[in-house]
Amino acid sequence: MVNCERIVKIICRRGEFVYTQEEKENFMRKALKEAKKAKAIDEVPIGAVIVKDGEVIARGYNQRETTNRAITHAEILAIDEANRLINNWRLEECALFVTVEPCVMCSGAIVLSRIPYVYYGASDYKGGTAGTLMNLLEEPQFNHQSHVEAGILKEECSEMLSSFFRELRERRKHHK
Amino acid sequence: MVNCERIVKIICRRGEFVYTQEEKENFMRKALKEAKKAKAIDEVPIGAVIVKDGEVIARGYNQRETTNRAITHAEILAIDEANRLINNWRLEECALFVTVEPCVMCSGAIVLSRIPYVYYGASDYKGGTAGTLMNLLEEPQFNHQSHVEAGILKEECSEMLSSFFRELRERRKHHK
Repeated sequence: MVNCERIVKIICRRGEFVYTQEEKENFMRKALKEAKKAKAIDEVPIGAVIVKDGEVIARGYNQRETTNRAITHAEILAIDEANRLINNWRLEECALFVTVEPCVMCSGAIVLSRIPYVYYGASDYKGGTAGTLMNLLEEPQFNHQSHVEAGILKEECSEMLSSFFRELRERRKHHK
Repeated sequence: MVNCERIVKIICRRGEFVYTQEEKENFMRKALKEAKKAKAIDEVPIGAVIVKDGEVIARGYNQRETTNRAITHAEILAIDEANRLINNWRLEECALFVTVEPCVMCSGAIVLSRIPYVYYGASDYKGGTAGTLMNLLEEPQFNHQSHVEAGILKEECSEMLSSFFRELRERRKHHK
Protein backbone atom coordinates (compact mmCIF):
# COMPACT_ATOMS: atom_id res chain seq x y z
CA MET A 1 0.00 0.00 0.00
CA VAL A 2 1.33 3.41 -0.90
CA ASN A 3 1.96 5.59 2.16
CA CYS A 4 0.33 8.80 0.87
CA GLU A 5 0.93 10.75 4.06
CA ARG A 6 4.66 10.06 3.83
CA ILE A 7 4.81 11.04 0.15
CA VAL A 8 2.92 14.30 0.80
CA LYS A 9 5.29 15.02 3.71
CA ILE A 10 8.32 14.45 1.48
CA ILE A 11 6.91 16.68 -1.28
CA CYS A 12 6.09 19.42 1.25
CA ARG A 13 9.51 19.15 2.84
CA ARG A 14 11.24 19.32 -0.54
CA GLY A 15 9.09 22.33 -1.37
CA GLU A 16 10.52 24.21 1.61
CA PHE A 17 14.01 23.78 0.21
CA VAL A 18 13.47 24.71 -3.39
CA TYR A 19 15.55 27.86 -3.26
CA THR A 20 16.08 29.92 -6.38
CA GLN A 21 19.66 30.37 -7.54
CA GLU A 22 19.49 33.95 -6.23
CA GLU A 23 18.38 32.78 -2.78
CA LYS A 24 21.15 30.15 -2.63
CA GLU A 25 23.73 32.77 -3.57
CA ASN A 26 22.36 35.18 -0.96
CA PHE A 27 22.74 32.54 1.77
CA MET A 28 26.23 31.65 0.52
CA ARG A 29 27.15 35.37 0.72
CA LYS A 30 26.22 35.22 4.39
CA ALA A 31 28.48 32.18 4.80
CA LEU A 32 31.26 34.14 3.03
CA LYS A 33 30.72 36.96 5.55
CA GLU A 34 31.44 34.39 8.29
CA ALA A 35 34.55 33.21 6.40
CA LYS A 36 35.80 36.82 6.46
CA LYS A 37 35.58 36.79 10.25
CA ALA A 38 37.94 33.78 10.23
CA LYS A 39 40.31 35.57 7.84
CA ALA A 40 40.35 38.62 10.14
CA ILE A 41 41.84 36.50 12.92
CA ASP A 42 44.29 34.68 10.61
CA GLU A 43 42.29 31.46 10.45
CA VAL A 44 41.72 29.48 7.22
CA PRO A 45 38.68 31.41 5.93
CA ILE A 46 35.73 29.02 5.99
CA GLY A 47 32.24 30.10 7.02
CA ALA A 48 28.84 28.47 7.40
CA VAL A 49 25.23 29.42 8.06
CA ILE A 50 22.17 27.34 8.89
CA VAL A 51 18.85 28.36 7.38
CA LYS A 52 15.38 27.51 8.67
CA ASP A 53 12.11 28.85 7.23
CA GLY A 54 14.10 31.09 4.91
CA GLU A 55 16.04 32.76 7.73
CA VAL A 56 19.62 32.33 8.92
CA ILE A 57 19.31 30.94 12.46
CA ALA A 58 22.96 30.03 13.22
CA ARG A 59 26.45 30.95 12.03
CA GLY A 60 29.97 29.64 12.38
CA TYR A 61 33.49 30.29 11.17
CA ASN A 62 36.67 28.28 11.47
CA GLN A 63 38.65 29.14 14.59
CA ARG A 64 40.73 26.06 15.26
CA GLU A 65 44.09 27.80 15.71
CA THR A 66 42.60 30.49 17.95
CA THR A 67 40.72 28.12 20.23
CA ASN A 68 43.18 25.18 19.96
CA ARG A 69 40.11 22.95 19.82
CA ALA A 70 39.85 20.43 16.95
CA ILE A 71 36.05 20.65 16.81
CA THR A 72 35.85 24.40 16.15
CA HIS A 73 35.22 24.16 12.42
CA ALA A 74 32.61 26.47 10.87
CA GLU A 75 29.96 23.77 10.35
CA ILE A 76 30.26 22.26 13.85
CA LEU A 77 29.92 25.68 15.49
CA ALA A 78 26.88 26.51 13.34
CA ILE A 79 25.24 23.12 14.02
CA ASP A 80 25.84 23.44 17.75
CA GLU A 81 24.39 26.96 17.78
CA ALA A 82 21.31 25.77 15.86
CA ASN A 83 20.85 22.79 18.23
CA ARG A 84 20.99 25.11 21.24
CA LEU A 85 18.63 27.63 19.64
CA ILE A 86 15.86 25.22 18.70
CA ASN A 87 16.64 22.94 21.66
CA ASN A 88 16.73 19.87 19.41
CA TRP A 89 19.65 17.81 18.08
CA ARG A 90 17.65 17.09 14.94
CA LEU A 91 17.94 19.83 12.31
CA GLU A 92 15.50 18.13 9.95
CA GLU A 93 13.97 21.40 8.74
CA CYS A 94 17.26 23.18 8.12
CA ALA A 95 19.69 23.72 5.27
CA LEU A 96 23.43 24.27 5.68
CA PHE A 97 25.43 26.65 3.48
CA VAL A 98 29.22 26.38 3.80
CA THR A 99 31.91 28.05 1.70
CA VAL A 100 34.10 24.92 1.42
CA GLU A 101 33.26 21.21 1.09
CA PRO A 102 32.85 19.62 4.57
CA CYS A 103 35.63 17.47 6.05
CA VAL A 104 35.03 14.01 7.58
CA MET A 105 34.18 15.40 11.05
CA CYS A 106 31.76 18.04 9.77
CA SER A 107 30.16 15.59 7.32
CA GLY A 108 29.62 13.32 10.32
CA ALA A 109 28.01 16.10 12.35
CA ILE A 110 25.71 16.89 9.37
CA VAL A 111 24.65 13.22 9.18
CA LEU A 112 24.20 13.02 12.98
CA SER A 113 22.07 16.18 13.11
CA ARG A 114 20.12 14.99 10.05
CA ILE A 115 20.39 18.16 8.01
CA PRO A 116 18.55 17.36 4.76
CA TYR A 117 20.10 19.97 2.43
CA VAL A 118 23.76 20.97 2.18
CA TYR A 119 25.11 23.59 -0.23
CA TYR A 120 28.80 24.27 -0.55
CA GLY A 121 31.03 26.56 -2.61
CA ALA A 122 34.56 25.32 -3.25
CA SER A 123 35.60 21.66 -3.38
CA ASP A 124 38.34 20.47 -1.01
CA TYR A 125 40.63 18.19 -2.97
CA LYS A 126 42.65 17.18 0.10
CA GLY A 127 39.96 16.43 2.66
CA GLY A 128 36.47 16.93 1.19
CA THR A 129 34.04 14.13 2.04
CA ALA A 130 30.90 15.44 0.35
CA GLY A 131 31.77 14.28 -3.16
CA THR A 132 35.56 14.65 -3.57
CA LEU A 133 37.47 11.95 -1.62
CA MET A 134 34.19 10.20 -0.86
CA ASN A 135 30.56 11.19 -0.25
CA LEU A 136 29.60 10.58 3.38
CA LEU A 137 26.53 12.84 3.07
CA GLU A 138 24.87 10.55 0.55
CA GLU A 139 26.16 7.26 2.00
CA PRO A 140 23.34 4.67 1.83
CA GLN A 141 24.72 2.68 4.79
CA PHE A 142 24.00 5.54 7.23
CA ASN A 143 20.54 6.16 8.66
CA HIS A 144 20.46 9.64 7.13
CA GLN A 145 21.38 11.05 3.72
CA SER A 146 21.56 14.72 2.78
CA HIS A 147 20.95 16.23 -0.61
CA VAL A 148 24.20 17.93 -1.66
CA GLU A 149 24.70 20.76 -4.13
CA ALA A 150 28.25 21.91 -4.84
CA GLY A 151 29.58 25.03 -6.56
CA ILE A 152 27.36 27.83 -5.16
CA LEU A 153 29.49 31.02 -5.62
CA LYS A 154 32.38 28.69 -6.33
CA GLU A 155 34.77 31.39 -7.59
CA GLU A 156 34.32 33.70 -4.58
CA CYS A 157 34.65 30.78 -2.14
CA SER A 158 37.79 29.44 -3.86
CA GLU A 159 39.34 32.90 -4.16
CA MET A 160 38.73 33.52 -0.43
CA LEU A 161 40.86 30.45 0.32
CA SER A 162 43.57 30.91 -2.30
CA SER A 163 44.13 34.60 -1.50
CA PHE A 164 44.52 33.66 2.20
CA PHE A 165 47.22 31.09 1.43
CA ARG A 166 48.89 33.41 -1.10
CA GLU A 167 49.14 36.20 1.49
CA LEU A 168 50.39 33.73 4.11
CA ARG A 169 53.19 32.57 1.80
CA GLU A 170 54.15 36.19 1.01
CA ARG A 171 54.24 37.14 4.69
CA ARG A 172 56.43 34.13 5.48
CA LYS A 173 58.79 35.08 2.62
CA HIS A 174 59.16 38.61 4.01
CA HIS A 175 59.88 37.25 7.50
CA LYS A 176 62.75 35.07 6.29
CA MET B 1 68.30 8.68 2.05
CA VAL B 2 66.71 7.02 5.04
CA ASN B 3 65.29 9.55 7.50
CA CYS B 4 66.70 8.03 10.71
CA GLU B 5 65.31 10.74 12.97
CA ARG B 6 61.80 10.07 11.72
CA ILE B 7 62.17 6.30 12.14
CA VAL B 8 63.49 6.69 15.70
CA LYS B 9 60.60 9.07 16.46
CA ILE B 10 58.07 6.54 15.14
CA ILE B 11 59.65 3.69 17.16
CA CYS B 12 59.70 5.83 20.32
CA ARG B 13 56.12 6.93 19.79
CA ARG B 14 54.98 3.36 19.23
CA GLY B 15 56.84 2.42 22.42
CA GLU B 16 54.73 4.85 24.42
CA PHE B 17 51.57 3.08 23.33
CA VAL B 18 52.50 -0.54 23.84
CA TYR B 19 50.01 -1.16 26.61
CA THR B 20 49.70 -4.60 28.13
CA GLN B 21 46.31 -6.30 27.86
CA GLU B 22 45.79 -5.53 31.57
CA GLU B 23 46.50 -1.83 31.06
CA LYS B 24 44.13 -1.66 28.09
CA GLU B 25 41.39 -3.33 30.12
CA ASN B 26 42.00 -0.95 33.02
CA PHE B 27 41.58 2.07 30.74
CA MET B 28 38.48 0.51 29.19
CA ARG B 29 37.04 0.03 32.68
CA LYS B 30 37.41 3.77 33.17
CA ALA B 31 35.55 4.32 29.89
CA LEU B 32 32.84 1.92 31.15
CA LYS B 33 32.59 4.03 34.31
CA GLU B 34 31.82 7.01 32.06
CA ALA B 35 29.23 4.92 30.18
CA LYS B 36 27.50 4.26 33.53
CA LYS B 37 27.13 8.02 34.02
CA ALA B 38 25.24 8.15 30.71
CA LYS B 39 23.03 5.22 31.78
CA ALA B 40 22.24 6.99 35.06
CA ILE B 41 20.64 9.86 33.12
CA ASP B 42 18.84 7.53 30.67
CA GLU B 43 21.25 8.13 27.79
CA VAL B 44 22.57 5.36 25.52
CA PRO B 45 25.50 4.20 27.72
CA ILE B 46 28.68 5.01 25.83
CA GLY B 47 31.79 6.31 27.56
CA ALA B 48 35.29 7.39 26.54
CA VAL B 49 38.59 8.38 28.12
CA ILE B 50 41.74 9.92 26.66
CA VAL B 51 45.09 8.71 27.98
CA LYS B 52 48.41 10.58 27.85
CA ASP B 53 51.65 9.41 29.48
CA GLY B 54 49.77 6.51 31.07
CA GLU B 55 47.20 8.77 32.77
CA VAL B 56 43.56 9.53 31.96
CA ILE B 57 43.49 13.25 31.09
CA ALA B 58 39.94 13.63 29.75
CA ARG B 59 36.60 11.87 29.94
CA GLY B 60 33.26 11.94 28.18
CA TYR B 61 29.91 10.19 28.12
CA ASN B 62 27.04 10.37 25.69
CA GLN B 63 24.50 13.02 26.63
CA ARG B 64 22.79 13.87 23.37
CA GLU B 65 19.19 13.60 24.62
CA THR B 66 19.92 15.58 27.78
CA THR B 67 21.73 18.43 26.03
CA ASN B 68 19.76 18.27 22.76
CA ARG B 69 23.09 18.90 21.00
CA ALA B 70 24.13 16.49 18.22
CA ILE B 71 27.83 16.82 18.99
CA THR B 72 27.62 15.66 22.62
CA HIS B 73 28.85 12.11 21.99
CA ALA B 74 31.34 10.60 24.47
CA GLU B 75 34.37 10.85 22.15
CA ILE B 76 33.74 14.46 21.08
CA LEU B 77 33.37 15.60 24.70
CA ALA B 78 36.56 13.78 25.72
CA ILE B 79 38.51 15.17 22.72
CA ASP B 80 37.31 18.69 23.43
CA GLU B 81 38.24 18.39 27.11
CA ALA B 82 41.72 17.10 26.18
CA ASN B 83 42.22 19.93 23.64
CA ARG B 84 41.31 22.52 26.26
CA LEU B 85 43.52 20.87 28.90
CA ILE B 86 46.70 20.70 26.84
CA ASN B 87 45.78 23.83 24.86
CA ASN B 88 46.45 22.07 21.57
CA TRP B 89 44.07 20.70 18.93
CA ARG B 90 46.61 18.00 18.11
CA LEU B 91 46.36 14.97 20.41
CA GLU B 92 49.33 13.23 18.83
CA GLU B 93 50.58 11.76 22.10
CA CYS B 94 47.22 10.46 23.25
CA ALA B 95 45.21 7.25 23.04
CA LEU B 96 41.41 7.07 23.05
CA PHE B 97 39.48 4.29 24.77
CA VAL B 98 35.75 4.13 23.97
CA THR B 99 33.22 1.48 24.91
CA VAL B 100 31.53 1.39 21.47
CA GLU B 101 32.90 1.75 17.93
CA PRO B 102 32.99 5.42 16.88
CA CYS B 103 30.32 6.84 14.54
CA VAL B 104 31.13 8.94 11.45
CA MET B 105 31.24 12.23 13.40
CA CYS B 106 33.46 10.91 16.18
CA SER B 107 35.73 9.10 13.71
CA GLY B 108 36.12 12.43 11.96
CA ALA B 109 37.00 14.22 15.21
CA ILE B 110 39.60 11.50 15.94
CA VAL B 111 41.16 12.02 12.48
CA LEU B 112 41.04 15.82 12.86
CA SER B 113 42.68 15.75 16.30
CA ARG B 114 45.23 13.19 15.03
CA ILE B 115 44.85 10.68 17.83
CA PRO B 116 47.25 7.85 16.91
CA TYR B 117 45.74 4.98 18.93
CA VAL B 118 42.07 4.10 19.30
CA TYR B 119 40.78 1.16 21.36
CA TYR B 120 37.10 0.26 21.40
CA GLY B 121 34.95 -2.39 23.03
CA ALA B 122 31.74 -3.33 21.19
CA SER B 123 31.23 -3.02 17.43
CA ASP B 124 28.35 -0.90 16.15
CA TYR B 125 26.71 -2.79 13.31
CA LYS B 126 24.41 0.11 12.40
CA GLY B 127 26.76 3.07 12.43
CA GLY B 128 30.33 2.04 13.27
CA THR B 129 32.93 3.61 10.99
CA ALA B 130 36.10 2.18 12.54
CA GLY B 131 35.93 -1.20 10.83
CA THR B 132 32.26 -2.15 10.54
CA LEU B 133 30.44 -0.10 7.87
CA MET B 134 33.77 1.36 6.75
CA ASN B 135 37.09 2.29 8.36
CA LEU B 136 37.56 6.06 8.38
CA LEU B 137 40.31 5.83 11.02
CA GLU B 138 42.62 3.93 8.71
CA GLU B 139 41.59 5.67 5.48
CA PRO B 140 44.71 6.28 3.38
CA GLN B 141 43.19 9.30 1.59
CA PHE B 142 43.12 11.34 4.81
CA ASN B 143 46.20 13.11 6.14
CA HIS B 144 46.06 11.10 9.37
CA GLN B 145 45.49 7.42 10.16
CA SER B 146 44.97 5.93 13.62
CA HIS B 147 45.89 2.45 14.73
CA VAL B 148 42.63 0.74 15.76
CA GLU B 149 42.15 -2.19 18.13
CA ALA B 150 38.63 -3.53 18.63
CA GLY B 151 37.16 -5.85 21.24
CA ILE B 152 38.74 -4.61 24.52
CA LEU B 153 36.30 -5.83 27.25
CA LYS B 154 33.90 -6.56 24.41
CA GLU B 155 31.38 -8.52 26.54
CA GLU B 156 31.07 -5.84 29.27
CA CYS B 157 30.76 -3.07 26.68
CA SER B 158 28.12 -4.97 24.64
CA GLU B 159 26.19 -6.00 27.77
CA MET B 160 26.14 -2.36 28.94
CA LEU B 161 24.33 -1.44 25.71
CA SER B 162 22.03 -4.44 25.40
CA SER B 163 20.86 -4.29 29.04
CA PHE B 164 20.04 -0.59 28.54
CA PHE B 165 17.85 -1.30 25.50
CA ARG B 166 16.29 -4.36 27.19
CA GLU B 167 15.29 -2.28 30.22
CA LEU B 168 14.00 0.50 27.96
CA ARG B 169 11.76 -1.95 26.08
CA GLU B 170 10.46 -3.39 29.37
CA ARG B 171 9.70 0.05 30.78
CA ARG B 172 7.83 1.00 27.60
CA LYS B 173 5.81 -2.23 27.78
CA HIS B 174 4.74 -1.45 31.35
CA HIS B 175 3.72 2.06 30.38
CA LYS B 176 1.39 0.86 27.61
